Amino acid sequence: MPSPFATLPAPPYYVVCFSSIRTEGDNGYGDMAEAMVDLASRQPGFLGVESARGADGFGITNSYWADEISIRNWKKVVDHLAAQSQGRTEWYRHYEVRVAKVERAYSFDKTEQ
Amino acid sequence: MPSPFATLPAPPYYVVCFSSIRTEGDNGYGDMAEAMVDLASRQPGFLGVESARGADGFGITNSYWADEISIRNWKKVVDHLAAQSQGRTEWYRHYEVRVAKVERAYSFDKTEQ
Repeated sequence: MPSPFATLPAPPYYVVCFSSIRTEGDNGYGDMAEAMVDLASRQPGFLGVESARGADGFGITNSYWADEISIRNWKKVVDHLAAQSQGRTEWYRHYEVRVAKVERAYSFDKTEQ
Repeated sequence: MPSPFATLPAPPYYVVCFSSIRTEGDNGYGDMAEAMVDLASRQPGFLGVESARGADGFGITNSYWADEISIRNWKKVVDHLAAQSQGRTEWYRHYEVRVAKVERAYSFDKTEQ
């Protein structure tokens, strides 16, 4: 299994915090989510993504980007796909997006202690 | 059940993106996590928190703060507690922290479409 952690350069870079509640049922969501990650990873400025969803249906995806332009270009792709597929209302009950500039970062590893 | 979404003011504000892999077993983690959220919510500058952890043990907690000072003060509290309890190595195999300034935010609600 690949690491769930994104390998990122030193700050500054950007994060898009995407919090969502799913609708009931899959409605093609699984395939879409996989295709989206694949598509994002080939997008200019994409740095990495981390994602977690609990059994309650609430999930967080933090995607990391080189700059604001990359994020806006990616949003155009997503909006276009959503318009084509009517997927947004099929897949999500509610979501919140926050776009933020990462200023500093640090980590902890048990084996290094 | 309370909403898993944080209710936040208009940007700018800060987000701390905390991604982690848990150790095996609870080791007091559940009680600690609950106590931490309770403690954070009484901390000056705390705006809200969102959290998701999947069955694979990978989780993301995004906490929202008014400014950098609030985050640094909160980190002092966490470091102090961690030093007291030796909890860090008990609870986490690995974690990554990114501190970022939220510049813009938007949302989507199915019922509003």
